[in-house]
Amino acid sequence: MLLTNAKIVTLRDNQDYGLIEEGAIALDGEKISWVGNAADVPPAYHCDTTLDLGGRLVTPALIDCHTHIVFGGNRATEFELRLNGASYEEVARAGGGIVSTVTATRIATEQELLADALTRVDALIAEGVTLIEVKSGYGLDRETELKMLRVARQIAQVRPVDLRTSFLGAHAVPPEYKDKPDAYIDDICIPTLRAAHAEGLVDAVDGFCEGIAFDTAQIARVFDVAVELDLPIKLHAEQLSNIGGTQLAAHYGALSADHVEYATDADAQALAKSGTVAVVLPGAFYTLRETQSPPIQAFRDHGVPMALATDCNPGSSPLTSPLLTMNMACTLFRMTPLEALLGMTVHAARALGVTDRGRIIAGARADLCIWDATHPAELAYRIGFNPLHNRIFKGSL
Amino acid sequence: MLLTNAKIVTLRDNQDYGLIEEGAIALDGEKISWVGNAADVPPAYHCDTTLDLGGRLVTPALIDCHTHIVFGGNRATEFELRLNGASYEEVARAGGGIVSTVTATRIATEQELLADALTRVDALIAEGVTLIEVKSGYGLDRETELKMLRVARQIAQVRPVDLRTSFLGAHAVPPEYKDKPDAYIDDICIPTLRAAHAEGLVDAVDGFCEGIAFDTAQIARVFDVAVELDLPIKLHAEQLSNIGGTQLAAHYGALSADHVEYATDADAQALAKSGTVAVVLPGAFYTLRETQSPPIQAFRDHGVPMALATDCNPGSSPLTSPLLTMNMACTLFRMTPLEALLGMTVHAARALGVTDRGRIIAGARADLCIWDATHPAELAYRIGFNPLHNRIFKGSL
Ligand SMILES: [Zn+2]
Ligand SMILES: [Zn+2]
Repeated sequence: MLLTNAKIVTLRDNQDYGLIEEGAIALDGEKISWVGNAADVPPAYHCDTTLDLGGRLVTPALIDCHTHIVFGGNRATEFELRLNGASYEEVARAGGGIVSTVTATRIATEQELLADALTRVDALIAEGVTLIEVKSGYGLDRETELKMLRVARQIAQVRPVDLRTSFLGAHAVPPEYKDKPDAYIDDICIPTLRAAHAEGLVDAVDGFCEGIAFDTAQIARVFDVAVELDLPIKLHAEQLSNIGGTQLAAHYGALSADHVEYATDADAQALAKSGTVAVVLPGAFYTLRETQSPPIQAFRDHGVPMALATDCNPGSSPLTSPLLTMNMACTLFRMTPLEALLGMTVHAARALGVTDRGRIIAGARADLCIWDATHPAELAYRIGFNPLHNRIFKGSL
Repeated sequence: MLLTNAKIVTLRDNQDYGLIEEGAIALDGEKISWVGNAADVPPAYHCDTTLDLGGRLVTPALIDCHTHIVFGGNRATEFELRLNGASYEEVARAGGGIVSTVTATRIATEQELLADALTRVDALIAEGVTLIEVKSGYGLDRETELKMLRVARQIAQVRPVDLRTSFLGAHAVPPEYKDKPDAYIDDICIPTLRAAHAEGLVDAVDGFCEGIAFDTAQIARVFDVAVELDLPIKLHAEQLSNIGGTQLAAHYGALSADHVEYATDADAQALAKSGTVAVVLPGAFYTLRETQSPPIQAFRDHGVPMALATDCNPGSSPLTSPLLTMNMACTLFRMTPLEALLGMTVHAARALGVTDRGRIIAGARADLCIWDATHPAELAYRIGFNPLHNRIFKGSL
């Protein structure tokens, strides 16, 4: 297939739009076989089926590299309780907080979890997403962690989207292990990781390194097993305070360190050295009314690739719009529209260890978005508007 | 038509959800003829066509009571320039700011303005809006102000939505009247208001009372003409500073005072006394990174009805999602989900001087939203997600 009459945002150099004003893209099966000026289309592609894009903007398809999109229940009533002035204690007594999501996820069937997750997955797809990362971490017991990962795998079977899973057993200490985080890591988290890996359910290993979750020593024990199993590493680090998670992630050569509001210049240097992506999550920053922004300028200065993601979850980021995420990254973190687009495409791919997509270059996967827009900055500029005209996944509309 | 198996958020008292867990609604043409428990449906409605809503949530349709949705061009490149560090001067030299929108609006044809506005109107409709207010104010000359209002009127002819227009000639001082705001008011603004009124294009008169726009004396001259023409009044007041706009609006018995971040407790008292609605606009607050919140608690204490709106405009609020507006009102202003819903329905109607809709009661207009949700707090809780199942406008799906 030959796409013609397109304004192409190639992102070919990872650092500017790489714009082709009057361009064409040749697709060969699931791949892009040629990209360039419309006037230069090689004769070999002239007899292909042609799709005239009417001058529309084409970008790489979007990638959501950090979500907790599989979960039971929702936390709307907790949201309402808090806004009516309920204290943390009152919310907890009413069954709120992460425990409520753990409880709802444990009692839900795979079928229920899948149906519920698909409503949110469909919202991502509608804005041009073709690759979604999904974490476990609301089970916190062997059975439910495995159930969440199986549901995540099923998403890619029933929707035209690719999935990557991250095992996040080290997300929180479950009620039954209250004040015994080490026992939880040893008795539940690590054995469950091994079981999930044996079942082929794990693409990466993640953790939540924070005062309210696990410290660096506990996370390191989980990461050592990841290394043993040859699984890549990601980490929720420095979201609410700095306790050394970013340095730990860099030490393990992690794919990404995520949130990173409280990361320092030294942390940015460490990420640059280890080639780790900083994943910023403005939806959680916005919802929690955080005031400390991630050190965007330090990431720029040290050449740390920045990705962004919805962090879709029922508590701190019930967000299902990648375009709004891009706007928030610009408005709240002063990232540029170009950085926001790179962060939702090529750098998001890198945060997942995926190298064959996120740019429009020959040989890359033919995952594309066609937008009713004339300039790429429009994608981040508008708020709550979806200009997607069409999405191409694996070479098919 | 009889709607059955509905969880109805009636808002009948203007102060709580007025929930009917297992309800039914009878529609007679464009109106609601009966609302109540499913078990109590009067025999007269038993033979109506029945629509089973499957237990879904029903609310009054949403109302966007403050928009500048008709305009030429967009300001995406200006957004990008600013985020790349351009100074105010550099943006102005590159043709940015409101002047760029005025220029683009002046050169656009009615047809172009309409086509462009409809893309945004469709986004509002898709989230359940049935009544939109549209302001002029990007013409700042007679011809273009009239053109904008004509386009606004056309929207209701080509889309299933009601429209209210506000004349906002006193929006900004155009370049050709630089440093001569009084001459602009006398030579252009007031004569254009009279002309627009004569053509039946004006439902209300609005102004922008601010240091960078017009002072209270200038606005008062416009309002005096509104009074003479028997037109209701609205005002952009106390957005960036307090220069007495809210008191002026109250003095004139305005329908609404809008933005009001810098309003005081005394201003809230004045609004309460005059029965004026405070319209809060979190999209502009968010985009401008304002830190001063409107005095929500003072509005509560004094019983000022609070509405909210997208403020859809190309500069300070390129926002086309009423649901996101509700989330922002909760997250940024700490309004409750109930206040957000009242603000997008019955209080928004009141801000437009419309009394026959915004609640689900017998005799009201049958403008309804049917949501894939189980609790009304979900509407404000989710971010960038549209759970609208169906919209009923004037009694029709
Ligand atoms: Zn997360
Ligand atoms: Zn306005």
